[in-house]
Amino acid sequence: MTAEASSSAANTSTPASTAPLSTLPIALDAVGGDHGAAPNVEGAVLAAKAGVSVLLVGDRVKLHAELGKHAGSSNLPLEVVEAGDLIGMDEHATDVRSRPQASINVCTRLVKEGKAAAAVSMGHSGATMASALLTLGRIKGVDRPAILTHLPAQGGFTTMLDVGANADVRPAYLAQWARLATVYLKVLEDRDNPSVGLLSIGEEEHKGSQLVLEAHALLKELHGHGINFYGNVEGRDIFKGTTDIVVTDGFTGNVVLKLAEGEAKVLFGWVREALNSNLKSKVGGLLARDALRGLAERMDPSTYGASILLGVKGLAFIGHGSADARAVKNALLRAARAHEGNLIPRLEAAFANLEH
Amino acid sequence: MTAEASSSAANTSTPASTAPLSTLPIALDAVGGDHGAAPNVEGAVLAAKAGVSVLLVGDRVKLHAELGKHAGSSNLPLEVVEAGDLIGMDEHATDVRSRPQASINVCTRLVKEGKAAAAVSMGHSGATMASALLTLGRIKGVDRPAILTHLPAQGGFTTMLDVGANADVRPAYLAQWARLATVYLKVLEDRDNPSVGLLSIGEEEHKGSQLVLEAHALLKELHGHGINFYGNVEGRDIFKGTTDIVVTDGFTGNVVLKLAEGEAKVLFGWVREALNSNLKSKVGGLLARDALRGLAERMDPSTYGASILLGVKGLAFIGHGSADARAVKNALLRAARAHEGNLIPRLEAAFANLEH
Repeated sequence: MTAEASSSAANTSTPASTAPLSTLPIALDAVGGDHGAAPNVEGAVLAAKAGVSVLLVGDRVKLHAELGKHAGSSNLPLEVVEAGDLIGMDEHATDVRSRPQASINVCTRLVKEGKAAAAVSMGHSGATMASALLTLGRIKGVDRPAILTHLPAQGGFTTMLDVGANADVRPAYLAQWARLATVYLKVLEDRDNPSVGLLSIGEEEHKGSQLVLEAHALLKELHGHGINFYGNVEGRDIFKGTTDIVVTDGFTGNVVLKLAEGEAKVLFGWVREALNSNLKSKVGGLLARDALRGLAERMDPSTYGASILLGVKGLAFIGHGSADARAVKNALLRAARAHEGNLIPRLEAAFANLEH
Repeated sequence: MTAEASSSAANTSTPASTAPLSTLPIALDAVGGDHGAAPNVEGAVLAAKAGVSVLLVGDRVKLHAELGKHAGSSNLPLEVVEAGDLIGMDEHATDVRSRPQASINVCTRLVKEGKAAAAVSMGHSGATMASALLTLGRIKGVDRPAILTHLPAQGGFTTMLDVGANADVRPAYLAQWARLATVYLKVLEDRDNPSVGLLSIGEEEHKGSQLVLEAHALLKELHGHGINFYGNVEGRDIFKGTTDIVVTDGFTGNVVLKLAEGEAKVLFGWVREALNSNLKSKVGGLLARDALRGLAERMDPSTYGASILLGVKGLAFIGHGSADARAVKNALLRAARAHEGNLIPRLEAAFANLEH
């Protein structure tokens, strides 16, 4: 167990973040995100202390200034790589095509050239997706990459994809994503035979949209061949943790993700309000504060760090624009772990085997 | 304020349930639902005490036996109407076509014949939808009826449709549903100019699925003509209460509804667990119990009673199979209120005006 893993030992149910000693550094888009360099550099310092080497990509002067605020950082496996341009949060994702010096493009090129193990960005999500897809290409057999993320659930967490890369999809994509996520959980979380649920509006096979009916038939055929297909699941099964994996189109998945985060925020606000509503409950709330704080942490997206863009031929992680240093650190640890576990070669192998 | 309204006065933010003195009785599918006659009859007794007359539809002997358990019920405006058949929760919705004596069919016929103001069922949802559509037909100008429901939100509640009647939809349906829900909120909740949000995966007009892009264009055109279109909303906006109404397809809406309910259940379970985790927080939890109980009530679907099937030419309400007496009572009050407010004629007028 590393420092990271034991520091969050109270929360045994979140995805594992054991830090490996990565052979290659991770490229971090160190100027991307709502808060610029500060949380990125702080997160990189924390990750480096946990044994992960990081390439800080962005404006050299700004990044060295930020590094200067962290005493002892010069002894850590951190290196600054210049990138003179940055795709702002309100610019167009398609700008990645015409701006080769944008920090995210420098990150994905470092991966492509074998100089970095993974690209991690808390910046413009669309730009990160576009840059990864353009620079790294797709794994053979994958039509569209998907964003995979984790949601807290009873007994652990649920892994869901796609949560936003593809608003309109074909049944075959869902089957491919089920395969990708299965390998991902085997490599990153040591899951033996993770179960796959297809998000629908009824458990019965004949219920759902046309897309879901066709995807169900495909997944049923693949059951036992690299996929452990459970059947349809419903909205309530995500937090119940009925299956390890939930596959859905990127429209529904994105709505689900934002609803889940928004609902948690509102409900915890109401719990706080309720506890403050009168003197008796106020005293009660003070006494219960620590316990509730642990719970808020469980719901905090920072715990998971970032989501992986699964299906591109290289490791790419996309985080919240509002990520704090802890989220950046966890994303870097997760990226290093994916590299150590040979995720990309194993994903390629899973699809190559299909051709026999 | 009626007994109902004042009993839940602490929760001023749920949809209004003021009981009117209905001129026509409400037909209740009194044998439908997971728990059979008991919660239906008890709910009807409660509604009758609040001034709503009810026709209890189902097996006459069973219903009289159940009524006998409620002292004084013979003095209430309750009447039993025989229905020899019942579509069970595990039977096919299409059975409504071939089983005219099924309780739900008797209910919708009573509405069609002008003998009841509304049909209310906690039984088979699909059968209720099918029976209402077959017997009552559609409002002119409405292609597909939708299920409208309420979700708790900051500052009140959010009204959402469709939550499950139509898995695959066309852009025009979403525009029609926006219009139906607007009239519904005016009549049932005295909202002046309710705002309509289109559920998508980004606030920007150009984000979303093909369906959403086309629906956005339609809704934008209708803005100011019977619809107050806000623009796109995201998953997080539902609990935030950004708009009064959220329109979406029945697949996404059903996933959202079940996720929202499932997440609330799991989160409150975790809050309880957290409060029980050690002696200090346990004492705190005991002190805070009443405040938290108020919150749980806010999240309880029974508070809303049942969802309306909007777009059929008559009032039809569909509740949870697991509904308790309180949910049945609230559904009956809501149905009476919709009748008193002339909801159906006002919906018809809203669509008739379009033809000028």
